[in-house]
Amino acid sequence: MDRMVSMIRDLMQEHTPDQKLGAVVVGAPGPLDSETGLIYEAPNLKWKQVPLREVLQEALQVPVWVDNDANLAALGEYTYGYPLEFEVLLYLTVSTGIGGGIITNGEIYRGIDGGAGEFGHMTILPRGPVCGCGNYGCLEALASGTAIARVAREEVSQGHLRALGESVKGRLADIDARLVAEFAAKGDPEAARIMEEAMGYLGIGVANLVNLFNPRAIVIGGGLSGYPGLLDRVRQVVKDRAYSSLSRNLKILPARLGNKAGLMGCRALAEIKLKSQN
Amino acid sequence: MDRMVSMIRDLMQEHTPDQKLGAVVVGAPGPLDSETGLIYEAPNLKWKQVPLREVLQEALQVPVWVDNDANLAALGEYTYGYPLEFEVLLYLTVSTGIGGGIITNGEIYRGIDGGAGEFGHMTILPRGPVCGCGNYGCLEALASGTAIARVAREEVSQGHLRALGESVKGRLADIDARLVAEFAAKGDPEAARIMEEAMGYLGIGVANLVNLFNPRAIVIGGGLSGYPGLLDRVRQVVKDRAYSSLSRNLKILPARLGNKAGLMGCRALAEIKLKSQN
Repeated sequence: MDRMVSMIRDLMQEHTPDQKLGAVVVGAPGPLDSETGLIYEAPNLKWKQVPLREVLQEALQVPVWVDNDANLAALGEYTYGYPLEFEVLLYLTVSTGIGGGIITNGEIYRGIDGGAGEFGHMTILPRGPVCGCGNYGCLEALASGTAIARVAREEVSQGHLRALGESVKGRLADIDARLVAEFAAKGDPEAARIMEEAMGYLGIGVANLVNLFNPRAIVIGGGLSGYPGLLDRVRQVVKDRAYSSLSRNLKILPARLGNKAGLMGCRALAEIKLKSQN
Repeated sequence: MDRMVSMIRDLMQEHTPDQKLGAVVVGAPGPLDSETGLIYEAPNLKWKQVPLREVLQEALQVPVWVDNDANLAALGEYTYGYPLEFEVLLYLTVSTGIGGGIITNGEIYRGIDGGAGEFGHMTILPRGPVCGCGNYGCLEALASGTAIARVAREEVSQGHLRALGESVKGRLADIDARLVAEFAAKGDPEAARIMEEAMGYLGIGVANLVNLFNPRAIVIGGGLSGYPGLLDRVRQVVKDRAYSSLSRNLKILPARLGNKAGLMGCRALAEIKLKSQN
């Protein structure tokens, strides 16, 4: 926490020494309460019940808002990626995990405890592999980078996926989704099948979102979203599985802001919050 | 259409001859456009592109609004079933099919084409049985009355579920979910297993809704919702599968308005619409 505060001060000093800090928006891993800025739990940071907003506000003496990082990325893509083009936009990020954010009427939809939009944790295969969240057959356990790496490791350890296995000299821990994607792109049929299966599940997850939210656009970002053919594959599954009256006017689009989506979402939220204060 | 108009006139005449008709709200099967009152398609009625609102408005010369029947049932339960108790309420109806409605901030959330809330058409078993919508493994194809009857017929035709099969003298068409539920309640272990499996899938669908919408309440109605133990089974699956931070403050509750939910929703919508006109 001290490091965050001093980094903010250093950045101000360095880049805008003649301006005053107006507000701070923090994108944090959920689940959290965006009203109070309390982080309920952030396992990767080993945080529990951290009153982030309160602490930063006291240290910096400016308004501070805290929101879920995927929510902010959604707001970023909505506001700056596809500037206000779509009234209802879902943002889906596919990388190590699968996260999401929901924008309706230009606002983040957070649900009651600030935890809506856990797109990665829809069950789509009830007896499927265990997920990091403890459930079985979550979208994240089937279509994320972690899932792709897990399947590839299993294949290698069973003697399949030879070329890939040799490239890491049998060190299973060195296998990640990027490597599987590389081999698939180079034409390895087994690697391609693993990618294909993951994309098929991703398509099912997206089709579910179409039937539930009836959005105008679904924007897909994250490290794996650039895999060749991913968007087309997802579009095909949506066409096959979702209601045609709901997919007819739907756009499935690539994220435009890359890893700046969250940052731009912080900016958008700051503008919304400061405006509503005046 | 003529019959609807003359029935409305007759009802007015009969019950409130001294009052003027103020407005009409119609709950119709979706998908439809609630802005224009155009029914895109209602397969059971053999309707296509029917401008219901326009026609009724012209005939009756009062404001007419048309909305999805499950949306209106959701609004009915929100407004009169649990009077304004829950800011975010999902309504799920389990009978022949599985439908749903979404209330956020006291309003129906309809999505872009008015088709949001197709809870029955989440895929939760990608290679599961074909659904009426053409997709495979939808919640409706696994947990609705139609699904329960289908499984029971399959079992009977394979020589299982003997007592039930004998009770209909082998006429498969006479098997419906109500009969399966009756046999299950009487202690038939095979019938109980069919009900149990359907409820398990229902729980998975509800757990998905929790992780996606983070609602305060999920209200379950429809012909099958009264099956003994259904709510507890759903609660258990949600506890097992959904994020605990999102299910902690969640209530899973029985619908209170029975088959009047839609009607009460019409009344609630009329009040909202007339208020916003003044």
